Amino acid sequence: MKAKLSSLVFARLIAVAILCVLALDARAQTDPLPSWNDSVAKTAIVDFVKATTTQGSPQFVAAEERIATFDQDGTLWVEKPMYSQVIYCLDRVPAVVKAKPELAEVEPFKTVMSGNREAIARLSMQDLEKILVATLTGMPVDEFRAEAAKWLDTARDPRWKRPYTELTYLPMHEVMQYLRGNGYKTYIVTGGGQDFVRVYAERVYGIPPEQVVGTAGGTKYGYAKDGKPFLTKEPRLLLNDDKAGKPEGIHLMIGRRPVVAFGNSDGDREMLEYTKAGAGARLSMIVMHDDAAREYAYGPAQGLPESKVGTFTQAVYDEAKKDGWVVISMKNDWKRIFAWGP
Amino acid sequence: MKAKLSSLVFARLIAVAILCVLALDARAQTDPLPSWNDSVAKTAIVDFVKATTTQGSPQFVAAEERIATFDQDGTLWVEKPMYSQVIYCLDRVPAVVKAKPELAEVEPFKTVMSGNREAIARLSMQDLEKILVATLTGMPVDEFRAEAAKWLDTARDPRWKRPYTELTYLPMHEVMQYLRGNGYKTYIVTGGGQDFVRVYAERVYGIPPEQVVGTAGGTKYGYAKDGKPFLTKEPRLLLNDDKAGKPEGIHLMIGRRPVVAFGNSDGDREMLEYTKAGAGARLSMIVMHDDAAREYAYGPAQGLPESKVGTFTQAVYDEAKKDGWVVISMKNDWKRIFAWGP
Repeated sequence: MKAKLSSLVFARLIAVAILCVLALDARAQTDPLPSWNDSVAKTAIVDFVKATTTQGSPQFVAAEERIATFDQDGTLWVEKPMYSQVIYCLDRVPAVVKAKPELAEVEPFKTVMSGNREAIARLSMQDLEKILVATLTGMPVDEFRAEAAKWLDTARDPRWKRPYTELTYLPMHEVMQYLRGNGYKTYIVTGGGQDFVRVYAERVYGIPPEQVVGTAGGTKYGYAKDGKPFLTKEPRLLLNDDKAGKPEGIHLMIGRRPVVAFGNSDGDREMLEYTKAGAGARLSMIVMHDDAAREYAYGPAQGLPESKVGTFTQAVYDEAKKDGWVVISMKNDWKRIFAWGP
Repeated sequence: MKAKLSSLVFARLIAVAILCVLALDARAQTDPLPSWNDSVAKTAIVDFVKATTTQGSPQFVAAEERIATFDQDGTLWVEKPMYSQVIYCLDRVPAVVKAKPELAEVEPFKTVMSGNREAIARLSMQDLEKILVATLTGMPVDEFRAEAAKWLDTARDPRWKRPYTELTYLPMHEVMQYLRGNGYKTYIVTGGGQDFVRVYAERVYGIPPEQVVGTAGGTKYGYAKDGKPFLTKEPRLLLNDDKAGKPEGIHLMIGRRPVVAFGNSDGDREMLEYTKAGAGARLSMIVMHDDAAREYAYGPAQGLPESKVGTFTQAVYDEAKKDGWVVISMKNDWKRIFAWGP
């Protein structure tokens, strides 16, 4: 028995040793961030991951504390000319009006139904909210999920004529994979609708629904005619996951302060501050859209054009420099933007 | 190079084979639920885990869908004579009154300060809410966490004179470990305070903060004098994670319907229904407190005494039988209740 045991122990030791060598070998041979130029930003990521995951490093972070949060719109995928979810809501208006014909003559639905793009672009925030409520609430959770999935399959963005889910940034995919490969749990923390992003986050980013934190409304529990219980989406805001709402959402849904955070606008300012202010090693990074040729250029930080979405002000830029966040220049730091293109 | 590669592949195959044999060997030899008697309940758990995790089984559940939710009070630990968190709040009242002396003459604080146990036991739900608000909100998140941790270290329950965190049920620990060992993600879904349970859930149950769903209030983002941002707990209810609030909380925080759920009272009814109503294999189980000698006996299902906490009505018992939930009898199904005792 003793002989059998020790031979088992020996076999296990050999097995572990082989796996360690293979893992080290694989790591040494591959650049984890091939779509990044060799720059300050890339070095910051690689150095940080090494420092926080190497046993014995003074900056070592315990595995369970390795939380990395990512804004979505403008950080993981394109947010111009309009947030994809807003386009989804506008596209859903005809179905809503068909179900409730009396809305056809009521603003802002009348304007949306007119198809007049300039008028639609001029809709106020208040009008937009009415559209969001009408198109995102009032239906069973499963029905919403199916509708959004159908739209994502068929809708195409106006510039590249591709599904929105293909407009994700390859360098950020690499960062997420690299972090996960080093024991980080990756979360999306978005001002967008939590239920909407959850429809595709697992397939597109490898981020499961339970790791998507977003703007969220309440749901109501009820029973179908056959007695089966189901949840209905209600027009009752639980969490406005933008600006100061992001640390609140992180506390509510994760309960730990992130070690790493990525954003791209003043909507991410508080999340980046909150992350950086934690004890020990912390990394906050902010994407600057300065590449009009390959994507878009907007700011107004550093003299970039003003923008209605994803505003990155000079004040936030200055805070980034002062507080030690790393600014990512899409133009200079990213070798490629999309998996399928430039 | 080719020779080197194929020898690497060979070494990896051997390593994987050895590990597989070791794992199979270990599994075959150990009963995953040693504190359970061989009964319908134990068989239900083991059969379900095998059916949902064996490749090719008609009931197989994909790894990412393996979500198991557990109520806490009365399901994972003792809830009698009072929820531990309520005892914590009562114990905090002197500190609150010290900070705000004007409360000493105001009800319900006056009664709590009197130390009159009978009068305290008679406090209304409204009074209790005032105490919860005063003791659980208004302080920075980190300060709350430190206070609760200190209390958990020193407080002792009146019957066994042990820390509350030792009053957890050994058979349920085994179930959680068994599920996790088979790729299930285990969550607590409690009517108790999310922030409170998160203080000890990782250490006590192996459940990290991000997998604790509970009754949750809002937080407010602000800056300390040194400019560091922090969150303050506010008396603003976001989620009442009890009864119909449990499926709502599950949708909000997890975004998937559980495959397995455990509860013990009418507060868990909707979670157990919602779980069981999902497509494919689902397991809902409900703990019945019928062991006055080793723990407590209360119901009033099956003629057990009425109880102020953890009410398990006959209607819920009947629904369990009708809907195919498995009832766990603490008296008959559990060989041992606590790791340290009977």
